[in-house]
Amino acid sequence: MGLLVVGSVAFDTIETPFGRVKDALGGSAMYISVAASYFTAPVRLVAVVGGDFPPEHMKFLEDRHIDLDGLQVLREGKTFRWGGRYHYDLNMRDSLYTELNVFEKFDPIIPSGFKNSAYVCLGNIDPILQRHVLERVNKPRLVIGDTMNYWIENKPKELSETMRFMDVLVVNESEARLLTNEPSLIKAAKRIIRLGPRIVIIKKGEHGVLLVTEETVFSAPAYPLEDINDPTGAGDAFAGGFAGWLAKTDDLSVENLKRAVIYGSTLASFCVCKFSVDGMRDLTHLQIQDRYRSFMELSRFDER
Amino acid sequence: MGLLVVGSVAFDTIETPFGRVKDALGGSAMYISVAASYFTAPVRLVAVVGGDFPPEHMKFLEDRHIDLDGLQVLREGKTFRWGGRYHYDLNMRDSLYTELNVFEKFDPIIPSGFKNSAYVCLGNIDPILQRHVLERVNKPRLVIGDTMNYWIENKPKELSETMRFMDVLVVNESEARLLTNEPSLIKAAKRIIRLGPRIVIIKKGEHGVLLVTEETVFSAPAYPLEDINDPTGAGDAFAGGFAGWLAKTDDLSVENLKRAVIYGSTLASFCVCKFSVDGMRDLTHLQIQDRYRSFMELSRFDER
Repeated sequence: MGLLVVGSVAFDTIETPFGRVKDALGGSAMYISVAASYFTAPVRLVAVVGGDFPPEHMKFLEDRHIDLDGLQVLREGKTFRWGGRYHYDLNMRDSLYTELNVFEKFDPIIPSGFKNSAYVCLGNIDPILQRHVLERVNKPRLVIGDTMNYWIENKPKELSETMRFMDVLVVNESEARLLTNEPSLIKAAKRIIRLGPRIVIIKKGEHGVLLVTEETVFSAPAYPLEDINDPTGAGDAFAGGFAGWLAKTDDLSVENLKRAVIYGSTLASFCVCKFSVDGMRDLTHLQIQDRYRSFMELSRFDER
Repeated sequence: MGLLVVGSVAFDTIETPFGRVKDALGGSAMYISVAASYFTAPVRLVAVVGGDFPPEHMKFLEDRHIDLDGLQVLREGKTFRWGGRYHYDLNMRDSLYTELNVFEKFDPIIPSGFKNSAYVCLGNIDPILQRHVLERVNKPRLVIGDTMNYWIENKPKELSETMRFMDVLVVNESEARLLTNEPSLIKAAKRIIRLGPRIVIIKKGEHGVLLVTEETVFSAPAYPLEDINDPTGAGDAFAGGFAGWLAKTDDLSVENLKRAVIYGSTLASFCVCKFSVDGMRDLTHLQIQDRYRSFMELSRFDER
């Protein structure tokens, strides 16, 4: 069916209480693409990098059957860089620096071979750019979009305009509350549904994920990991697994949306075990299926 | 089998964004007993009230088949009073006043007919009093205990001594972290298991409940209520439903512990819809079964 992924690719320098990496592969589109690549192929990546983006990263993406026709390489520029440090409990982090570099003037050009993608996953970028992407593709079956506090606060009008064209909005708890000014997550989700998306996914970190539609609420647990090394990209890995599963199965029933939520949670659980995208470099389908079944065990109970 | 409940009975004055009640029936033992009474009878209540405790409350408890032989009525004293005000999002509250009154010198005397109770649920009271209760009963099959930040900070030695005799510790997220100095809830639960209780239940409010044993983790969702009027007593209603179901079934298998968690969550979900214990005044078994099945719907997904 084709899954188009648009977002950022970055070099992340990350410190957590459990280690540090310098200029490691990161960015929303990177985590989404890699996670999705375990379910569907090719994943069509639209992003921008600089001349400093090394061949081994290209090789890794090609090995994962990610189509790089839409990856703009600006030879004279430098790749987006971000540095962050997590606090002791991993729930908070400080941004140490943000160098937009080539990402500053990113124009998401969609190669003609990508325009018929039935599934589109928009990473957390300027809602105006997200909108441009949607204007440049041919009626996708499902548009999944992410956003963040920054856009909610600074471009509310543009975001609200773009959200009208999203089928699924993926946000975290605080973003859902900020967007709707509603402390109850269920009420917040219902309000978001009135803004456009008919499916709302609220990521709650260690508390799992809520999927809300007009008729359904589904509550997925988080996998009870004892050792989380780096939470960076967990939300994007979730979105990638979710989108990848839907693109693979092309089934938008509520039952299959629930499965997609669990596959998303599965990829996120692998993602956070290692730094950067290393937790998703070489998973096997058996590992993914085992983790899926562990999620069933974790939340299953029977009739009395 | 007999379920013994020991804790506080209070008159609560509560303000939330959705209303206010004055001197309404409250206290940990009250919420626990009323919730448990939907599963097992008689519930044996040990607590203390003053001469101001009105006959209609006595009648309500008797109607719910709660055995009041252990309810000390100190005619010359006044019942414990507490006042609190919740913030806009209901996750925070300020205590406005605490008048211990007859509760200040509470000595949990266990009537001889109560000493053989197979199930004991200790509400959040001084760990020294909890210990006294356990010294005064004959080898219960299961001891369920609650505690709070105040005791963790002010009587850590006494609490740790009492915890050695608990089978189940029921705490909320922040208490689990404070008790173990461990930000990961799973690791915190595993540490608590090394302190005595072989079953740890971590209440996460709107995010549901974790049940952790040496071999199992079970994650139960919270019921997605749009209208919560008063969160007071939700944790105790949970403990009461949990304990009541176990006392009724006398089955300590992991599968039945999971059911008990869902019945606890069910009672908590009814509790918070109204002020004081009003949400649990006249539930029917059909309502409880329907809510249990809604919990199944909420968290169920199938194999791909």
